[in-house]
Amino acid sequence: MINIIGIGQNRENMTLGALNALKESDVIVGYEKYIDSISDIVEGKEIIKKGMGDEVKRVEMAIEKNFEGKTVSIVSSGDPGVFGMANVFFPLISKYDNIDVKVYPGVSALNYSASLLGAPLHDFAAISLSDLLTPLAEIENKLHHALLSNLIIAIYNPISKSRKEPFRLFKKLVLEIRGEDTLIGIVNSETYPSKVKVVKIQDLDEDKINMSTTLIVGNKMTYNEGSYMITPRGYVIKYQLHPMTIDFYQKFINGETPTGPNTECEFYPCHEEGQYCDFCYCPFYPCGDSSTGGKWIKNKNIWNCKDCMWIHKKENIDCVKPHIADMIKEPKDLVKNKKELLKLRRACILKDPKHY
Amino acid sequence: MINIIGIGQNRENMTLGALNALKESDVIVGYEKYIDSISDIVEGKEIIKKGMGDEVKRVEMAIEKNFEGKTVSIVSSGDPGVFGMANVFFPLISKYDNIDVKVYPGVSALNYSASLLGAPLHDFAAISLSDLLTPLAEIENKLHHALLSNLIIAIYNPISKSRKEPFRLFKKLVLEIRGEDTLIGIVNSETYPSKVKVVKIQDLDEDKINMSTTLIVGNKMTYNEGSYMITPRGYVIKYQLHPMTIDFYQKFINGETPTGPNTECEFYPCHEEGQYCDFCYCPFYPCGDSSTGGKWIKNKNIWNCKDCMWIHKKENIDCVKPHIADMIKEPKDLVKNKKELLKLRRACILKDPKHY
Repeated sequence: MINIIGIGQNRENMTLGALNALKESDVIVGYEKYIDSISDIVEGKEIIKKGMGDEVKRVEMAIEKNFEGKTVSIVSSGDPGVFGMANVFFPLISKYDNIDVKVYPGVSALNYSASLLGAPLHDFAAISLSDLLTPLAEIENKLHHALLSNLIIAIYNPISKSRKEPFRLFKKLVLEIRGEDTLIGIVNSETYPSKVKVVKIQDLDEDKINMSTTLIVGNKMTYNEGSYMITPRGYVIKYQLHPMTIDFYQKFINGETPTGPNTECEFYPCHEEGQYCDFCYCPFYPCGDSSTGGKWIKNKNIWNCKDCMWIHKKENIDCVKPHIADMIKEPKDLVKNKKELLKLRRACILKDPKHY
Repeated sequence: MINIIGIGQNRENMTLGALNALKESDVIVGYEKYIDSISDIVEGKEIIKKGMGDEVKRVEMAIEKNFEGKTVSIVSSGDPGVFGMANVFFPLISKYDNIDVKVYPGVSALNYSASLLGAPLHDFAAISLSDLLTPLAEIENKLHHALLSNLIIAIYNPISKSRKEPFRLFKKLVLEIRGEDTLIGIVNSETYPSKVKVVKIQDLDEDKINMSTTLIVGNKMTYNEGSYMITPRGYVIKYQLHPMTIDFYQKFINGETPTGPNTECEFYPCHEEGQYCDFCYCPFYPCGDSSTGGKWIKNKNIWNCKDCMWIHKKENIDCVKPHIADMIKEPKDLVKNKKELLKLRRACILKDPKHY
């Protein structure tokens, strides 16, 4: 049997299956840094350490040992299926008859990094910036499309001492396509515990990252909360309608509410001069989405929109309003159709021309 | 302390950290199916099971229990950061002061599925087809860009009893953009062990998949080998140049080799009628890439190109030839510059107009 084993990012996220398989192996094959990190588990076994760049050789030696009747484990950091040893092994499997192989998946760098950053992921892409085996133009094309489609992006192998061009291209593309406010989560695992930081793309300094760094690129909805990087999925927060909200939406449905800035109102401007008042009460309240400036009043279960101008801007009202009439036939539809309302809001934030 | 714990796809890929944290918890909160799968570990603890769709409620109950001074674990299948409970939890964290939280990353469905399929991943995207919280047009846009850029795509939540439209849209887009030969890895984990199958997109039957299925969409280089789905990364296989190869490339460099079909040759057509003979000996030999029809002769370390026509087709020669002269100044450059040669080949397979 040949095991291809992901040992995770550290002992804590090694899987039970990986630990057992390592213990039951006769021979352990791997890059020396990874083998050193599991030396206590594999003590006394036959060890074949090879350097970086010897990947094919490592697989061939493992197969040779297996033909001698030994149970062999090839170790990979993280998950062997994500830029790991499974990707080296399987293209070679057809060279031989009857190889019994099992892959032990592991916690990959993107999953580990996300766990330290909080909850940065939504739909995402994982792209390696190493152009050793992949043309740089192919990497550029993938980055380009991932950035255009608002995917979160996990970056593997961001830079090395001799390979800085792909990183510079990456930074340029993020700035051009997703903009200077794009948040980047930086997880550096060169030392333990890993160092974690969230910066804006313009402040991402190439001297601060290396081969042990994973980057997570936020999307248009990602925000920073304390030390966390969070991308909201848009879960509905249950909430009772305020009587004044019910009153407003009854008037809205009857066509009795103002459009544009309501300078007659005694509270105008409750947010800022020039604000549109078409939705005096936000139809998405409480969205619970801190990316727009709203925030929770601590320990009170009250969502405070004072610093959110979103629903008072003309362009957003123009996007939202034509659809609200279909969704809100009576005030309680604000609760009943909340999921659809939040999806409408999401589409308008992303300015997706095809939606609604 | 609140732990947000990924329990993996089954016991074997639960992490050591997850197991310990579960054991040390007072209260376990989670979707009932996941809690049932760890009942032996959490026996005797306070258990709060909630149904699907109660995610926000689950988090609020966990926080409440934590305020009572208890160590609480919220469980997620797979990785809690990938469409899991971390994504529900963190947008709510700012409601309260001083919540101590730790995320235990896990083996996500895509990593597990890849491990059963062999090595299908290269650069990839992970996209959920659930349009409960995400507008379908946003999902479509992400699929569109991921397909255009040759990313492998892992599909989460492909279909449910009441939600078939996103799946049909997905299938249509794959057919249109990546073509009918696109390979799809299907991993269904409704029963144990999981059922694994590789089909072409046109044979992907919606009646055969459900909420427990993960799909892996291959790219233009992905191939099927026995029951495995493999996407080659392009590792260099070391090989000695054959004397006849050296002889051919010396002539090639001197401009003494034929162009187009060499009907004078005693072996013509060695592959098929009409073949171009500009590269009588393939400059990429051995590419080790079974996706082009080549294959290993079992147990002999010989790569057999008999069924590969790639280097004998005019369009490929037109793409490759202008650059070969720069790369091959003497025959041994075939070995020395193998990485660059394989990248050139890759760019021509992908027909990337920007590269080379």
